[in-house]
Amino acid sequence: MSPEQMLDVAVEEARKGLAEGGIPIGAALFSSDGTLLGAGHNQRVQNDDPSIHAETDAFRAAGRQRGYRSTIMVTTLSPCWYCSGLVRQFNIGAVVIGESRTFTGGHDWLAEHGVAVTLLDDERCVAMMEDFIAERPDLWAEDIGE
Amino acid sequence: MSPEQMLDVAVEEARKGLAEGGIPIGAALFSSDGTLLGAGHNQRVQNDDPSIHAETDAFRAAGRQRGYRSTIMVTTLSPCWYCSGLVRQFNIGAVVIGESRTFTGGHDWLAEHGVAVTLLDDERCVAMMEDFIAERPDLWAEDIGE
Repeated sequence: MSPEQMLDVAVEEARKGLAEGGIPIGAALFSSDGTLLGAGHNQRVQNDDPSIHAETDAFRAAGRQRGYRSTIMVTTLSPCWYCSGLVRQFNIGAVVIGESRTFTGGHDWLAEHGVAVTLLDDERCVAMMEDFIAERPDLWAEDIGE
Repeated sequence: MSPEQMLDVAVEEARKGLAEGGIPIGAALFSSDGTLLGAGHNQRVQNDDPSIHAETDAFRAAGRQRGYRSTIMVTTLSPCWYCSGLVRQFNIGAVVIGESRTFTGGHDWLAEHGVAVTLLDDERCVAMMEDFIAERPDLWAEDIGE
């Protein structure tokens, strides 16, 4: 499974979030052989839950795993410090990122600490976030603690 | 309200977690005037949820807040990278830590980035974690991704 195919799953999650009136960021956790372990999207609006970003939702959906070194976290947007911390703490081996033009979190820091980072610069992801930020700057600021 | 008094709330949460058969780490988020905004404890065992550490549980319990700069996160144990990332991303202004003898996460990194860190070296917290790690080394390793 290519990074682009894995990103498609995260994009689908982001679209679900948008359709629910939420923040359009999606993520998915895959095993090294391309098996989908869990997928999810930001739940701030839908569940009034500020602790569930796309990456944490995918991580939660994957349930309790014994080791993440060979897993791949795919996300439509550069992971914020919260989600970057998740990747580092659990030793997730690789991160595939849809785009980092609209927001840059901790992916350089992850690369420095040995995580294999792939940045795709996907136009669908950029457009989705640009439209969302233009429409709901307040909600976006809230979600990244600004 | 003193850091020690705030820590008492987190210790009570850790004890609740232990009584439930879970990992004995507790946390609480306070406003600058000492109002308790939310408290919680690790939910890995109880809810089979690896995404809910003590700090994320307290953060979630506090609901959607508009700005965290003046808030204080109190935790029985040095925050792991995941929870340190939470503090940094949401600009939580201060962290009070029960102990960092049994585990040291990202609190020095937080201090470097302007977070006011208070380390109490509380004997109750040390004893609770030492006992837990001795009894369930497997579960502890799972919770910190080792």
